[in-house]
Amino acid sequence: MPSISQRGIIMPSSPIRKLVPYAEQAKARGLRVFHLNIGQPDILTPEVAISAVKNANLPIIEYSHSAGMPEYRRKLSKYYHAAGINVSPDEMLITCGGSEAVLFAFMSCLDPLDEVIVPEPFYANYEAFATSAGACVKPITATIETGFTLPSIDEFEKVITPRTKAIMICNPNNPTGYLYSEKEFMQLRDLIIKHDLFLISDEVYREFCYDGARHYSSMFLEGVEDNVIMIDSVSKRYSECGLRIGALVTKNREVLASALKQAQSRLCPPTYGQIAAMASLDVPESYFRKMNEEYCKRRNFLLEGLNRIPGVYSPMPRGAFYTVAKLPVDDSDKFCQWLLADFSYNNQTLMLAPASGFYSNRTLGRNEVRIAYVLNVDDLAIALDLLARALRSYPGRTPESGSPIVY
Amino acid sequence: MPSISQRGIIMPSSPIRKLVPYAEQAKARGLRVFHLNIGQPDILTPEVAISAVKNANLPIIEYSHSAGMPEYRRKLSKYYHAAGINVSPDEMLITCGGSEAVLFAFMSCLDPLDEVIVPEPFYANYEAFATSAGACVKPITATIETGFTLPSIDEFEKVITPRTKAIMICNPNNPTGYLYSEKEFMQLRDLIIKHDLFLISDEVYREFCYDGARHYSSMFLEGVEDNVIMIDSVSKRYSECGLRIGALVTKNREVLASALKQAQSRLCPPTYGQIAAMASLDVPESYFRKMNEEYCKRRNFLLEGLNRIPGVYSPMPRGAFYTVAKLPVDDSDKFCQWLLADFSYNNQTLMLAPASGFYSNRTLGRNEVRIAYVLNVDDLAIALDLLARALRSYPGRTPESGSPIVY
Repeated sequence: MPSISQRGIIMPSSPIRKLVPYAEQAKARGLRVFHLNIGQPDILTPEVAISAVKNANLPIIEYSHSAGMPEYRRKLSKYYHAAGINVSPDEMLITCGGSEAVLFAFMSCLDPLDEVIVPEPFYANYEAFATSAGACVKPITATIETGFTLPSIDEFEKVITPRTKAIMICNPNNPTGYLYSEKEFMQLRDLIIKHDLFLISDEVYREFCYDGARHYSSMFLEGVEDNVIMIDSVSKRYSECGLRIGALVTKNREVLASALKQAQSRLCPPTYGQIAAMASLDVPESYFRKMNEEYCKRRNFLLEGLNRIPGVYSPMPRGAFYTVAKLPVDDSDKFCQWLLADFSYNNQTLMLAPASGFYSNRTLGRNEVRIAYVLNVDDLAIALDLLARALRSYPGRTPESGSPIVY
Repeated sequence: MPSISQRGIIMPSSPIRKLVPYAEQAKARGLRVFHLNIGQPDILTPEVAISAVKNANLPIIEYSHSAGMPEYRRKLSKYYHAAGINVSPDEMLITCGGSEAVLFAFMSCLDPLDEVIVPEPFYANYEAFATSAGACVKPITATIETGFTLPSIDEFEKVITPRTKAIMICNPNNPTGYLYSEKEFMQLRDLIIKHDLFLISDEVYREFCYDGARHYSSMFLEGVEDNVIMIDSVSKRYSECGLRIGALVTKNREVLASALKQAQSRLCPPTYGQIAAMASLDVPESYFRKMNEEYCKRRNFLLEGLNRIPGVYSPMPRGAFYTVAKLPVDDSDKFCQWLLADFSYNNQTLMLAPASGFYSNRTLGRNEVRIAYVLNVDDLAIALDLLARALRSYPGRTPESGSPIVY
């Protein structure tokens, strides 16, 4: 039997999805599983998107343009303009989800053994895409104790080597909910100029900023237009995860040309997804306002509840719909598996994402989990109760307090 | 400005799509362009698939399983069983088109600098996916003079090195229309056993075999179950190119596990595409029979017409819906561009795919093109007339006869 590739062996498992078989078994045993492990919103997809698909009269589901339907790109560029991002329809490629945009960006910027610096904890799949490209993620650690603020520029400088080609950030951040400030962006700007680096900026949660905070896009940065690559997606913005429609946006012509060659090799993004995504651009401003209010309510409810559980601590996220929480457990991988395999209360349990998979340094995050607040407040209340009960009965509970700061 | 990756630079352009800007310009000038460059069938997508999408009552377009919807995989395994391929729903991953299945297979089997042997001419995008994986395509040449029959096993043996990890075939073949025989498969079987290689077999045209020929699947091979990876897609089978639904099928557990990690990193295949693809499995046998009759008629018409044009030669394809034709031109890249940029007759022109891009050895195929017979006979008649006229007026016409064999 031929052996698989080294890459295939070292490819990390998704911390979000690796426990899926345990969840399936739990459901098979009749348990109701509250899914806080995955960023699958329960918000309804806009009716205008669903209708567009129903009313699409396509006798043949044809290939579209490899860069995405021109009419969708034109309309999307207007959305960006309204957000202060000045890009033309030919400065973007429509991709199969934000995932493919990250893969194209890495493939276009990184050669095997090249390095990309990513503040950790980070969206775990970046590591998988870096592995696909044969490149290395060089983490710099943001800590829960400081609320996951961006590590100082000195920390970046320390890990920069001749192989460093890019810095990757996610803003607002998945998994921490951290929202980068304009000041932090100015520091990153100086850094990428000084070391001639790409800045790959995942902004799929741009519409999810709370407490009146304004989203600062990497595309606002002046003088580094050729360095910046923005990753986008409709998955969260319009509750359209299953459409698989994202975008790679950049003014760098060489990156675009390279990404287009990759896009051509996989032919095109999904047709129905583009139709729905294009229609979604017609949702009124009130859609986002209501959605933000809802998430804000959930966030406040969740964070208050979490920090009230003895030994649990989570800093207040300012964007996206995740938070990282520190739990009084020996190993969150074991705890999350135990929740599905060995715990239940009233025929219910919950699924969380162990945070270890969001750190490149696997010794970190062992007592942290990522929680997605994608359920309504009533369900969150049950989930919080389940978590509190589970922590009381989990055999691997640790004695130390997990709460360095009173919430 | 940071430099893009070497991979991004050497990534080949799609020979099928690289002339798209010239086609767009031709259309902007008011020309009608007959598209024989791309395998976009004009056959209607089955009504049952379109209806399934229209009737899907999804309030939220959610992520699906990373391996694809379980109900779709169950139904698909029945389709394979009916074709004599004995696979279970957990021996396959649903992918974003056959393209992603090839990428996953290469990523799972090939490390940087590993080699995959591919008989050329081959589907050009294999080279792009190999480039993404950092691997090398080692071609062995099939010639138009022998009707693109599989080169002898000696030819394979000659290029096998310690870095050879896989053989990739496409059956029926894109671009040649060649259909591999059971005898050829037995030879390949012996070879992959002898050298412990993967056999990656692209079988997306399985339903397109003509003249009563039976499709022999790589999955039929006994004793090499762990070596074989089958690539599949609904794009051509049901005229659903824009759905972006394919499959990677294998009994090799390690390959599946590695591919699943990649699948999890990109979350899931498109939801609407899976719904339509699942419904398509209900089309009656008569759908394929009618489709085959139609393509057979087109093939016969096209081949007769091509071989009647002075200096043109194309061997009779036995499957898929392509043929490679030799033209009396200096350079088919130039000729195909000239067709779009400088030629027209009655405000019409045609788009062909230069064959050079289907050869790894770039000195080959310089006077060949790939023609997809995806238009009806009336349109093919116009296209053939345009081709004959174009060849008469093309300034780079070569004097030699392109027809070594009388058709």
